[in-house]
Amino acid sequence: MDERQIDNLVTLIVDRIKGRLPMASEGASLQRGPHGCVGCPTNATGAEFGCKGMATLGATRIGTCQRQPERPAEIAPYIDHTLLKPEATKDEVIVLCREAKEHGFASVCVNASWVRLASGLLRGSRVKVCVVVGFPLGAMSASAKAYEARDAVRQGAQEVDMVLNIGALKSKIYEDVLDDIAKVVQAASPAPVKVILETSKLTEHEKVIACSLSRIAGAAFVKTSTGFGGGGATVADVTLMKSVVGDELEVKASGGIRSSEDAMAMIAAGATRLGASASVAIVTGQKSLKKPGSY
Amino acid sequence: MDERQIDNLVTLIVDRIKGRLPMASEGASLQRGPHGCVGCPTNATGAEFGCKGMATLGATRIGTCQRQPERPAEIAPYIDHTLLKPEATKDEVIVLCREAKEHGFASVCVNASWVRLASGLLRGSRVKVCVVVGFPLGAMSASAKAYEARDAVRQGAQEVDMVLNIGALKSKIYEDVLDDIAKVVQAASPAPVKVILETSKLTEHEKVIACSLSRIAGAAFVKTSTGFGGGGATVADVTLMKSVVGDELEVKASGGIRSSEDAMAMIAAGATRLGASASVAIVTGQKSLKKPGSY
Repeated sequence: MDERQIDNLVTLIVDRIKGRLPMASEGASLQRGPHGCVGCPTNATGAEFGCKGMATLGATRIGTCQRQPERPAEIAPYIDHTLLKPEATKDEVIVLCREAKEHGFASVCVNASWVRLASGLLRGSRVKVCVVVGFPLGAMSASAKAYEARDAVRQGAQEVDMVLNIGALKSKIYEDVLDDIAKVVQAASPAPVKVILETSKLTEHEKVIACSLSRIAGAAFVKTSTGFGGGGATVADVTLMKSVVGDELEVKASGGIRSSEDAMAMIAAGATRLGASASVAIVTGQKSLKKPGSY
Repeated sequence: MDERQIDNLVTLIVDRIKGRLPMASEGASLQRGPHGCVGCPTNATGAEFGCKGMATLGATRIGTCQRQPERPAEIAPYIDHTLLKPEATKDEVIVLCREAKEHGFASVCVNASWVRLASGLLRGSRVKVCVVVGFPLGAMSASAKAYEARDAVRQGAQEVDMVLNIGALKSKIYEDVLDDIAKVVQAASPAPVKVILETSKLTEHEKVIACSLSRIAGAAFVKTSTGFGGGGATVADVTLMKSVVGDELEVKASGGIRSSEDAMAMIAAGATRLGASASVAIVTGQKSLKKPGSY
């Protein structure tokens, strides 16, 4: 297939997916329902399975309102409690791990140089250690990303969040994008890999291609944002990503999630994991005013 | 030596260095002389060796005004022509390399996934390939940084710009900061290593310690900024860094250098290399309005 044919195929696929996502592609604003979930009918009496709006949005898997978290504290198991700023200190990582155990977060998400410390602190708890790889630019070589992933898993990381090669994607060198993800998936095994798309920098075409390549490469999740690249998770992006990866992969929403309302909206849109540094505020029903993942 | 003793020693060293830098430590504004260099006497008749102000600032090595670039085009050999945004495409890297050859820049500075391409394009020219490692957070493991450096050199990189472990520095785990740099220096050999401090995130104490550790670890340069961490090169920082590393190491100023005036000021302060994406504007005497290394 030459480049022109690939372009045509991609356009066809994107158009079909957009056709299934009328609300999202028109950028319609989504209303919040009585359970805080986006697209839920505002009339609670008709809300037996809730989230009807999401079906219109083309979601292939949504929980009913009943099965979704209803109170802020119930969001905790969805959250990767995240501390990625380069100036984070040992003491801050210790606090992060303590908070994660206290609130029952899914994991702590840290830079690789803190994996050994976090792994030691969390031994015997249910909280996992999630590491970032090729972060936040995604522009290092595939073999270096693979080494970084393997090294982190050896030191105790149980999940790997990698950034895809954005430049290769934009240059339409799709085989390099695929190879990059596949190498990390193989190197990280048995740890599942989440592929960060950095949605704010991608067109709709590129988001669809990135999700498809992640699926082919054997990733476990696609994830919206690094938190360092401007922008962050949106309901429209999570919905689009979920519609492409279907039931095979999960979606992690990250970047700018500062309150339980933000978190509920992402879960309603299909996210089963959330990346947040404002996690404690989220599960205690506070509104965090800190800037999202500012660097 | 316990932590308290180390702290006292560091305070003593920093105070001595500050004592030698009265103008810099007081944050005095530096005037530009007739040759565009900072601290140069404004009366041209007294300017035989120029840059007298810099001696007051404690610089251990300064070029005379005569030996410094006097015209924008003469700045070219000082510049690492830089393209590090994650969404940079293959075509943009090709343009970067062409511009570097055309203007005679010292190197192109790229992310690792473009090293092989740049190396091929620049073969037979004087322009080197400079790669960034552990970039821009500096928070990956030392062994992953070392692997990344070795891999990039194997692919054709001739200089390595690494980010030091800022979190370890702030946590006062100095042996880890040192080990991190030393591992990269060893892995990159024979390519020289520039250690990026990310000065905007460091205190004066930390800048001095970082320079000292870079010197001990065998780095070739200390460098101010990634361009992604807020802030950028300042005359005061370049002067401070130069005074700590002396003649053994060189100083690279990077971040926010947008014009020939900015470039001349950094060179006058002791920088022998400049990182810039506005390189063409600098050597043609234009003023670039683009934001510094925005991400």
